[in-house]
Amino acid sequence: MKCADDIDVREVEENFINIDPIQAAGRLTADAMKAIIAYGDGYSVCDNCLKPFRLDYIKKPPLAAFHADLASWLEMAEARVVPGARRGFQAVAQTYVDKGDPVILSSLGHYTEFIAVEQAGGEPFEVPKEESGIIRQDAVAETIENAAKKSGKTPVLMFMDHVDYQYGNLHDIRAIAKIAHQYDIPVLCNGAYTVGTMPVSGKDLGVDFIVGSGHKSMASPAPSGVIAATDERAGEVFRTTKAKGNVTGRTFGIKEVEMMGCTLMGATVMGMMASFPHVKERVKHWDKEIENASFVLEALLSIDGTTVVSEYPRRHTLTRINTLESFDIVARTHKKRGFFLSKELKKRGITGVIPGSTRVWKYNTYGINRTQAEHVAGAFREIAEENGLEVR
Amino acid sequence: MKCADDIDVREVEENFINIDPIQAAGRLTADAMKAIIAYGDGYSVCDNCLKPFRLDYIKKPPLAAFHADLASWLEMAEARVVPGARRGFQAVAQTYVDKGDPVILSSLGHYTEFIAVEQAGGEPFEVPKEESGIIRQDAVAETIENAAKKSGKTPVLMFMDHVDYQYGNLHDIRAIAKIAHQYDIPVLCNGAYTVGTMPVSGKDLGVDFIVGSGHKSMASPAPSGVIAATDERAGEVFRTTKAKGNVTGRTFGIKEVEMMGCTLMGATVMGMMASFPHVKERVKHWDKEIENASFVLEALLSIDGTTVVSEYPRRHTLTRINTLESFDIVARTHKKRGFFLSKELKKRGITGVIPGSTRVWKYNTYGINRTQAEHVAGAFREIAEENGLEVR
Repeated sequence: MKCADDIDVREVEENFINIDPIQAAGRLTADAMKAIIAYGDGYSVCDNCLKPFRLDYIKKPPLAAFHADLASWLEMAEARVVPGARRGFQAVAQTYVDKGDPVILSSLGHYTEFIAVEQAGGEPFEVPKEESGIIRQDAVAETIENAAKKSGKTPVLMFMDHVDYQYGNLHDIRAIAKIAHQYDIPVLCNGAYTVGTMPVSGKDLGVDFIVGSGHKSMASPAPSGVIAATDERAGEVFRTTKAKGNVTGRTFGIKEVEMMGCTLMGATVMGMMASFPHVKERVKHWDKEIENASFVLEALLSIDGTTVVSEYPRRHTLTRINTLESFDIVARTHKKRGFFLSKELKKRGITGVIPGSTRVWKYNTYGINRTQAEHVAGAFREIAEENGLEVR
Repeated sequence: MKCADDIDVREVEENFINIDPIQAAGRLTADAMKAIIAYGDGYSVCDNCLKPFRLDYIKKPPLAAFHADLASWLEMAEARVVPGARRGFQAVAQTYVDKGDPVILSSLGHYTEFIAVEQAGGEPFEVPKEESGIIRQDAVAETIENAAKKSGKTPVLMFMDHVDYQYGNLHDIRAIAKIAHQYDIPVLCNGAYTVGTMPVSGKDLGVDFIVGSGHKSMASPAPSGVIAATDERAGEVFRTTKAKGNVTGRTFGIKEVEMMGCTLMGATVMGMMASFPHVKERVKHWDKEIENASFVLEALLSIDGTTVVSEYPRRHTLTRINTLESFDIVARTHKKRGFFLSKELKKRGITGVIPGSTRVWKYNTYGINRTQAEHVAGAFREIAEENGLEVR
C-alpha cells in the first residue's frame, strides 16, 4: 500500500510487536496521532501568536501551559522544546564550551554529545566505566583531575547519560553530579532513555540540565525533545538575543539565542503535547515495564549459553544480550545464517532485532503488555528449541 | 471539537481562505498528510537504516533518492534536510564565523540569520536597502569595504534574503553574489520565501548555499528545511566528525558535525518527501500565483488612500500594504476599532490578517485559486465601500 507517490505505508507498529532498541518508546499515542493530523500544516500553532512573539508564550493552543508543565514535571525551573535531544546538547555546549576547553563525558555517552562538544571546539574526556558497565563517582573525580592536569583548565561542562544507549544501564547521576559540582562544573543529564519512560526529577538528580528526547521516549514525532534547566542556569542557556542591526538599529525582541528563536512550531510540538498526559501517567508504571523486560530476559537466559551484557537484574527495558554461545552457534550452520533469528521472530509477529544479529545485540521491550511479553519470551525459547539449543 | 484532552482541533485551513504572511505556502498537501499519518512514530524512517547509518543513506523509505533529488532540483551539488531554515543558517555560521568576524547581512534579513551570527560570535554588518526597498550590489560592495575597514578583516560570510520577509521583495542575488565573490566571501541565499514557491536555481544565482524552509514554503510539517551547497562548500559545511573517545578510542563514523548527525527522522522528512512532487510542479505555475496576487493588490489599491509598500508591480505573493489613509481612518471611529477589518474579513471566510491591523500590514495570497482571489479582492472592496471609503 502506498501513502504517496513512491512511498510505501509503514505498518511495522500495526503488524508486529516491535522490540527495536530506539523505537519502542517513541510510538505515538492515539491522541498524538490526532493532534498531528489537526496541526500538520507548517506554522499551524502560530494562529494566535501575540506579543512578545515567542513559541513558549502562545496560549492557544496551550503551549505556554505545556512548557510550564514540562518544567514542573521534571522538577526544574524552566523548560523549552527543541528539535531532538541533540539540539539541547548543542545549546548547552555552545553556551559553556570555548575552543580547547575540556569537557567530561561518559565513556558510554551518545555520539551526539561528542558532536556537540566538537562543534563548540571543546576537547572530550571520557569517564571510564567499571567492568560492570557502570560509571562511578570515583572515576568521575579522577577524570576531572586528569582533564584539568592535561589541559591546564578545569572542565567547563559535564554530559552524563542517565541510562546509556549501549547497555541500558542506570547510572547514579546524583552522586556523579555532586562530584562535578565540587569543581563548579555544570552537569547535563542526558535523559533520552529515561524522560518519558521512568520517573525523572531534576531536583533529586541535582543536575543543572535535563535533556529528553520526544521521538525516542515521549511518544512524539521527530525531531522533538526537551531541555530543562535550573533557575541559575536558565538565564545562561536561555539568554535572549543582543543582536542589533548596525544600519536599521533593529533588535530582535526576546528570542533566545541558543533556541534560534522559536523551535517546534507544528506537528512535532503538538504531538508532544497530546502525548504528554499519557506520558506523565505511564512513567508511574515503570515497575510493570521492568517486570516485562525481566520476564523476556529470563526466557533468553534460560537458553543455554546466553548471557546478559547489561547490568543484572535489569533497571531498564533496553537490554544488551550475548548469544554467541547460543543463537550464533545455530547461525554458523543454518542455511539462512544469522538471518534465521530475525526471520523466525518475524514469523511470530516480532520485529526490531537487526536482521543478521546473533552475537551481541540489543532489544527494548518498552510498552509491550504482559501477554505480548509472554509471546516474545515464548518465541525466543521456541526458536532456540527448534534449532537444537538446550532450554532449561 | 477536541483532538486530545484540552487541545482544540485546528480548522483554519478547512474553514477559511488563509492569507497569513507566513502560513500560506506551508499548508500540507494531501499526500503529506497521509505520509505523516503513516510515519508519525518517532524513529519511523529508521526501520531499514543500514551501514553507514546516516539518514541520507536510507533507501527504504527512499530518503537517499529524495536528498539527491533536492540537490539536483536546486541545481546544487549536495543537499541535506534540517529542522528549519534557521538550522541551516546555524550550520553555515558555525562553519565560517569565529569570534569577532564581520558578517554581511541584508538590512531586510530575517532575525534567525542575526541569531546564527550572534551564536557564532560574529559581528553583523547590514547592507542598506534602496528607498525602493531593494538591496543593490553597489550597497553590498560599500558595506563589505566598510565592514573590512571597521573590523580589520574581510567579512567571512554573507547572508542574503532572496525574497525578504518584510516587503516580499525580490533581490538580485546573482549580482550581489558576484560582488561578494570578488572578496572571496561565501554567500548563503535565504530562500525561505522562494524555495518551494518559485523556481530557484543555485547555479543561476551563483551562490554557495541555498537554504529553504519546509514549513514555510514546501508544504511540510515543522520544523523542516533544506540546505544545499556547491561541491566546493559541501565538504566544509557537511564535514564529518573527527571526535574520538580518549578512553574508549571510539570514533563516530560519517556523522556530520553541523548536522548533529541525523536530522529529520520521521513525520517531518516524510511530509517534505510526500509533498515534494507537488512542490516541484507548483513552482512551474508561479506566474499564476503572481496574477492572483496582483489581482488582489489592484483591488486594495482601488480603495482611495491605500498604497503598496512592497515593490510594484509585484514579483511575490507576500505583500506589504499601507492603509493608514483608508481602513485606518475607519478604525479611528469604528466601535470595533482596528478589529473591524479582520472581523469583516472573517465574516466573509477570510483569515490571516493580524486582528487589529489597519495601518501597515502584510498578507500572502500564495496557493489560492482565481475564484478565491476574486472573493478576497471583492471582500476588501466591499468592506471599504460599506465603511464609506471611496472605491474606484
